[in-house]
Order: sequence, then C-alpha cells, then structure tokens
Amino acid sequence: MAAPPASAGPALAIAVTEAGGLGLIGGRFSVDILRTQLQEASQTLKSSTNSLVADAALLPIGVGFLTFVLKLDDVLPLIEEFRPCVVWLFVARTLEGYVEWAEGVRRVSPGTKVWVQTGSVSAALHIAKTAKPDALCIQGADAGGHGFEKGAGIISLLPETADAFRNEGLSHIPLLAAGGIMDGRGVAAALALGAEGVVMGTRFLGSREVEIHPAYQAAVLEAQDGGQVTVRSHLFDELSGPNMWPEMYDGRSLAIQSHKDRVDGMELEEIQRLHNEAVKERDEGFKTGLHGRAAIWAGTGVGLVSGVEGAREIVERVRGESREALGRVAGL
Amino acid sequence: MAAPPASAGPALAIAVTEAGGLGLIGGRFSVDILRTQLQEASQTLKSSTNSLVADAALLPIGVGFLTFVLKLDDVLPLIEEFRPCVVWLFVARTLEGYVEWAEGVRRVSPGTKVWVQTGSVSAALHIAKTAKPDALCIQGADAGGHGFEKGAGIISLLPETADAFRNEGLSHIPLLAAGGIMDGRGVAAALALGAEGVVMGTRFLGSREVEIHPAYQAAVLEAQDGGQVTVRSHLFDELSGPNMWPEMYDGRSLAIQSHKDRVDGMELEEIQRLHNEAVKERDEGFKTGLHGRAAIWAGTGVGLVSGVEGAREIVERVRGESREALGRVAGL
Repeated sequence: MAAPPASAGPALAIAVTEAGGLGLIGGRFSVDILRTQLQEASQTLKSSTNSLVADAALLPIGVGFLTFVLKLDDVLPLIEEFRPCVVWLFVARTLEGYVEWAEGVRRVSPGTKVWVQTGSVSAALHIAKTAKPDALCIQGADAGGHGFEKGAGIISLLPETADAFRNEGLSHIPLLAAGGIMDGRGVAAALALGAEGVVMGTRFLGSREVEIHPAYQAAVLEAQDGGQVTVRSHLFDELSGPNMWPEMYDGRSLAIQSHKDRVDGMELEEIQRLHNEAVKERDEGFKTGLHGRAAIWAGTGVGLVSGVEGAREIVERVRGESREALGRVAGL
Repeated sequence: MAAPPASAGPALAIAVTEAGGLGLIGGRFSVDILRTQLQEASQTLKSSTNSLVADAALLPIGVGFLTFVLKLDDVLPLIEEFRPCVVWLFVARTLEGYVEWAEGVRRVSPGTKVWVQTGSVSAALHIAKTAKPDALCIQGADAGGHGFEKGAGIISLLPETADAFRNEGLSHIPLLAAGGIMDGRGVAAALALGAEGVVMGTRFLGSREVEIHPAYQAAVLEAQDGGQVTVRSHLFDELSGPNMWPEMYDGRSLAIQSHKDRVDGMELEEIQRLHNEAVKERDEGFKTGLHGRAAIWAGTGVGLVSGVEGAREIVERVRGESREALGRVAGL
C-alpha cells in the first residue's frame, strides 16, 4: 500500500507499516529531502512498540524513486545506509533504465527487494526479462497521478499480463495491482484477477498522515463520480513551465479550471501565467474543488474517499472489508 | 452476456441463451433488419430441444436499441409482436430519453424487463430515478465500441455506483458490469465489486457466431496488450462522414491506420477519402491487424481473445473459470 509520490511521507509510511501493510515513501525530487525523511522514518520505526517492526533487519518501509529525476549515484549511498525492505522504481526514460537501478540497489543492499511499476503487458514483460524485479506493480489507467498515457484498467490489464507471464515462464514474479482500488471490494477483485497484492494511493489522500494542503484534501473529499471528475492529461505537467516527464507518461488529476480553460481553447502561456499566480496564494492554487488552477492528482476512485481517518484505520478497515468481500463471493 | 451492437445477431444470441446465458441481439440501424433477425431467433428458439428455452413465455433473448437511431413508434410494434425477455436501451440523446422508451416497452409488453446501459455514477442515478429500469448495466471505460467519452474502469465505477445507489435507496436495482471482463477472473472480480451479473462483448468477437468480417476477426485474434492496441476516439465515428453520435459518446477501436494518420496530422477529409475507398475493397477496409482504415471495435480485453470457438463453449468455459476463480479467492 502506497500513496501518491508527492504526498506520501514518513508519517504515512510508518502508519501503514505499523498497521501491517507496507508503507512507502513516495518518489522525491531531492535526495536531501529523502535523507531527512528516511532518518525520521528509521528513528521512529526503531522505537516501535511492535517488535516485528522495531527489530526488522531492513527498514520495514518501501521507498519510491522516479528514476528519470534522481541520479543513481546520489541515491545508492542512501539505500546502503538505510536499507529499506523495498525499493520501488518508476518512470525510467526508457525501459532499459530499470536494469542499472535494480543492479545498483541489489549491490549496495542485497536484502532489499526491487519492485517496478509499469502500465502495459509489453513493458511488464520487458522489465521482467531485463531488470528481473522481485515484483511488478501493474498500474491500470484508473490510477491517479502519473502513468502511461495509454492504458487499460486492471480488469483486463492484470489478467492479460498474468497470462503473458505464464506463457513466458515468468510466473515466479508476483504481480501487484494498482489503479482504482479503494476498499475491500477492490482488493478482492484484484485478487480474483490474479494479483498477489494491491497498491493503494488515492485512498490515502483521505488519511490524516498524508502530506497535502488542506484545500487539496477538501477537494478530494468533495469529488464524486471519479471517472467524470478526473481526467488524464499532459497539461498537468505543463502548468508551471515545460513538461519534464517522458513523453509516454501523463497524469490523472481532478479536472481543474486550468484543464477546462485549455479544453475551451485558452493559450497554454495564459494558463501557465494564471497557475503561477495562483500558487502564490494562501490555498496554493487549489481553491475549492474544481475551481483551482493547481493539479490535484487523484485516481478514478476519488469518489469513494468521503472522510478523513488515520492510515492505520484505513488499512484495518480495508483488511476487514476484503475478508468480507471474499467471504461474500465465496458464497456465490 | 452480449456482443458489440454491429456484430451480435440471432445466431450468437441463440447460442448464448442455449448455453444458459442471456443472448442479446445488438442495436440495429434498421427496424426491417431487426424484424428479420427477431423472426429467425424466434423460430429457432421455439424449436429448441431445451424446454426452458422452447416453452419460455417471452422470447428468451434480449434486444438492444440505440435509442437515438430508431423511432420508438417504429420499434414498439416489434416488441409487442416478439416480446423479448429483455429490452436493452443505450445512447439516448439526453438521459430523459430513456423514460419514454421504458414506458413504451412496458406498455406493449408488460413482462419484458428494461435494462439501460450507462457509464457514470450520476447518469446511473438519474436513469434509476426517472426511467426506473429493471437493471442497469454499468459500462466501464475499458469497453469496446461506444460509451461515454469520459469514464472510469469498473474497478472504481461499480463500487462507487453501488454505494450511491445504497445511499439513495436504489439498491433494489441490480447492477451489471461491462468493460474489460473476458473470462472467469473478470466475472469473479465484477461480483466482488458488487455486480450481480456481467456483460461480455469483446469476448464474443472470438466466437464462431459473431457477424464480423474474417479480416476483422483476424485482427482481433492478433491484437495484444489491449490498453496499447486500442484507443477511444471520436474519429471512428467520422470515418465515413459527419459524426451522428451524441457528443458525449465516443468509441474504442483498435488503433487502426486511420487513427495513426489523424494523430500524425492528416486532414480529416483525406482520412475519410482513404477510408471510403478502402471499404470498397474485398477486406472492407479492415486489412491485416492495425493497418486497416475501417474501425475495429474492441475493448481493452482484446488481448485475451486468442482463438475462435463456439459461443456455447465460451459461455461454459467462462462459467467454469468463474467457479474456479471464486473458489481460489475464497481460500485466501
């Protein structure tokens, strides 16, 4: 279980791990910030009252990396020092980019598991054969934040990937499902599709520990009808200036005013100007709900986030609901 | 269980019903063709060796209608004459359009169930309250052929709709799931999400009974990585001339050459000219795989169609797989 890169810090990662999930610190744009967050997580986890957590040989959280952003040489010392149990790789400029990262991570921290997230059958196959990850996160098009511009929901993506892996003798690599999974019903569905675990991001936008502006969280709580209120677009990466992301990636955000203006024909330069003015305001450009100018990354499941609770409560609730959903379908 | 409008005729509908599913004849653009097909289905079903089928009080198949295409007054005499057990309504110009159709169908054939397909939480709620259908088919964005331009996969759309229905006291209306469901894993997932049944279209593109050109079927069999090889676009409704479909609808097709050319900047008029030339050829413009100029409607699950078999075998296989998948997750 994870949360969107920009918003999953040590507090959220720790709470999820303490509740028996695997908490993740999302991909940072700065190694210095990541070091501070890893120090915080490490100190807190070592003094956990949960002995499984406190005495773990590796740091019992995962750490996400946007591999097109950070330099591997800058990252490896951190991994060697903190030895997270999982390193999560995402957004290499080319699929070959994961190979060097996987090898590097394993060299400096042999016990660390390498997980890679990707969004198509062919990419998953390629990464499985080249980077040989310990697990692959199969990200469906419903996911919030960044992902492949083109894609399928996990309803077909997961089974097609599982079949392709079986046909190519790669079934030893566990597949995790991401994108639109919000509660126990989604977990049960993902397991039925063949996933061995799930990744949840948008769900934790409704947690107390998530690092987002109150106006961002308010917009998430208010949003309904997730397929209508969110949209995938490259625009969200162009709001403050040139798009730095590899071309095949875009992102899913609430369909904010900036997006509506673009659809209505407003020039990009004017949208950027309005955005860059708005983010200086107290609400950092998020405004209320859909009227803001800053991206509010969220998946199509956003309509199922209706309140704020602790991450521990979310993990425990989802676990209970999953049992319930599995029990219900078992009776059919 | 259904199949894409253009390709589900009496043979497919009969085979699915004979196998214990509910076969559907897809939405026709002509009342005369529909009459011929209903006569054929009616005669065949009445002589079925399956007494449940032969002696059914209503015609034991469903009939789909694109309500923006046909006139209700032309359709009602057919429904009164053939009394299909289900009338399936789709693509009203406005959501209010379903009210008149539902009332008309019930007036001329009281036993006929009215099912409506739609693709958002708010549309489903509105239709439930106004047209009061006997079931709603919740169509996710992975579906092939036409659907809402904007949308979510059923992984989040189905649970959000189910919750909204519960909150509004509408839980008596069963929800069926459509979009990306290809086999027993998908069926089990849909049931876990809260669906009471599933609709399968793309899966039957791999049936012997489906009414598609051999080149179309060959392209379906060849297609892999369904989220990459298909795409939603309005272009597919503009290939032969002006787009007649309501604006909020587009369609998912294989990403054929016509689409690639449009993305590369070719003028629509030139794409139309090439399309209208190509459809006169022996392969009707489908060519091999992705090189054709005519739309090849298919959902993201197309990569899971790898061979041709009888519709009965498909239904029986999916039923067996569903039990297997439900049994497997029940053990988790």
